Amino acid sequence: MRAVEPLRILPGEGVEALDQTLLPREERRLRLRTVAEVAEAIRALRVRGAPLLGVTGACGMAIAGGERGAGREALARAAAELKATRPTAADLGAMIDEALRAADAAGDDEDERRAALWRFAAEALARQRVRDAALARHGRDLPGMEGGVLTHCNTGALATGGEGTALAVIAAAWRAGRVARCHATETRPLLQGARLTMWELAALGIPATLLPDSAAASLIASGRVNAVITGADRIAANGDAANKVGTCALALAASRHGVPFYVAAPRSTFDAAAATGADIPIEFRDAAEVGGFGDQRWSPDGGDAWNPAFDVTPADLIAAIVTERGALRPPYGPAIAALTGMAR
Amino acid sequence: MRAVEPLRILPGEGVEALDQTLLPREERRLRLRTVAEVAEAIRALRVRGAPLLGVTGACGMAIAGGERGAGREALARAAAELKATRPTAADLGAMIDEALRAADAAGDDEDERRAALWRFAAEALARQRVRDAALARHGRDLPGMEGGVLTHCNTGALATGGEGTALAVIAAAWRAGRVARCHATETRPLLQGARLTMWELAALGIPATLLPDSAAASLIASGRVNAVITGADRIAANGDAANKVGTCALALAASRHGVPFYVAAPRSTFDAAAATGADIPIEFRDAAEVGGFGDQRWSPDGGDAWNPAFDVTPADLIAAIVTERGALRPPYGPAIAALTGMAR
Repeated sequence: MRAVEPLRILPGEGVEALDQTLLPREERRLRLRTVAEVAEAIRALRVRGAPLLGVTGACGMAIAGGERGAGREALARAAAELKATRPTAADLGAMIDEALRAADAAGDDEDERRAALWRFAAEALARQRVRDAALARHGRDLPGMEGGVLTHCNTGALATGGEGTALAVIAAAWRAGRVARCHATETRPLLQGARLTMWELAALGIPATLLPDSAAASLIASGRVNAVITGADRIAANGDAANKVGTCALALAASRHGVPFYVAAPRSTFDAAAATGADIPIEFRDAAEVGGFGDQRWSPDGGDAWNPAFDVTPADLIAAIVTERGALRPPYGPAIAALTGMAR
Repeated sequence: MRAVEPLRILPGEGVEALDQTLLPREERRLRLRTVAEVAEAIRALRVRGAPLLGVTGACGMAIAGGERGAGREALARAAAELKATRPTAADLGAMIDEALRAADAAGDDEDERRAALWRFAAEALARQRVRDAALARHGRDLPGMEGGVLTHCNTGALATGGEGTALAVIAAAWRAGRVARCHATETRPLLQGARLTMWELAALGIPATLLPDSAAASLIASGRVNAVITGADRIAANGDAANKVGTCALALAASRHGVPFYVAAPRSTFDAAAATGADIPIEFRDAAEVGGFGDQRWSPDGGDAWNPAFDVTPADLIAAIVTERGALRPPYGPAIAALTGMAR
């Protein structure tokens, strides 16, 4: 067992980020010292996972304060640039806006504003750790979080900077002696499950099975899965949840076999402005990601592709949504309204 | 447009097979002249697709007659060896048994028996072409076979030696001006969709879109899919259909969105001895196929994997099963009994 630290803050200077595109083959730490470097790292998925993107956004604003000055106009431009890198990631936009407010609360002195931005970034990472631990506790004892569980994409430390969301729940249930094995989907096209989740599970010492995304329905049908739990990138007011493409298929298969499907996501993932999943903008990525991986191409060149980063799992397929304040149960409308209306 | 010919018979000598593991990058033809070479080609998926495996099995028996003698005992041993290469493929076993009967019908003279085996192999390929054309005609006008259709794995000429099954239906509906675009899943772990179906669609001139297996539910939810059609490797007496892993997930997503899900399979795919899908043996393949492709590895070494070659789609999710004798509709029990009871 070893600690996984995807982001380290170097106050006043920049951040050190693990380049997640190189895992599990190479552990390379990048020093990011400019807004452009932070934006590139987010866009290229070197840093990924909704909550970690939030923390990274806060760091990007602190870096902007040093690089471009901490005045209102300069920061607003940096905020727009950073937000545009991943339009579906609610945490990224929210944390950037919070960073702007933290700077404004410090007054007009640029040194004070810069210091406030760095303080805010450090606090954001510390709060993430506390939040993840609370979420894991609330999810650990859910029905079905025992024996074999199935997850998708990567939702561990690499995704949040803390312990993670869905993977933190699995790890907590494993430490409690409930979960015995974690089944992880490959998660095409970027293979976050095969590359990152399998690497984190090995680091945590949790017995793990890797499967093609397409084999999940067969695994669930075989009786080896007592619960499915994934993260979410954005959750609408009715409980519809946008998450890594492929999530909806897992929820459909779980529903068919009476296996509970859970979503684990911090409160910052809820978007009150989206009434249903139809209001969540879906990011489409480069066609070249499909039909190959890395430098390897296995489909004929130049074809069209359907490559959405996310899909929407309808609320009626979700047995519970685990947050750092507790697990929400259907009907989600009132539960989400109550949660998002709470004081922070 | 160009003809796709995955298997050529060289009577009295052997067969020439396109090595499908090298497509679409390289078109290499292998000369197979021994039972061991045929078995290796089947096991390594150089030759694949249920009906083409049937024809290849017939060719393998003809090759055995030359290589090992055409006596009853020698042929029985070759038959067992060839059948063991892909235990789930019903066509392979059935055609090998038919080849044995063709040899026996020729009497005891080994030259006569050998000649009968080669005649049987050539007829098997010719019959396959006629059968595929008939199946395509019966599927072409099904509801939803227009606009955008979705398929899985490879079910074209490369899979049968004729025009194919599901892909032949799509091609016929495209030639009739009904289908405008074929969406093809990558089909992890061996990527038959990305490598073979996209290559065949390009050869046929049909506009095509490639998608990760995990993105099928999102594509169907988007309204771009009017029908889903796949092949099958074995169909139970109640209509449960075993096909390439990932098929069941497509049927679940289609069902959720009211899109018809069709299976296209020749009569030889039906297995009266299997009452339901639970009676169909599922082949599990090497764990190393998951977490990488070819020489490339992207997951940590040495992990466990869940890698079934097939999954079972329950009959209640199937809107019709298209055969060379017509399209079967639910309830499948009596329809399948009537079909399999027909004279050949």
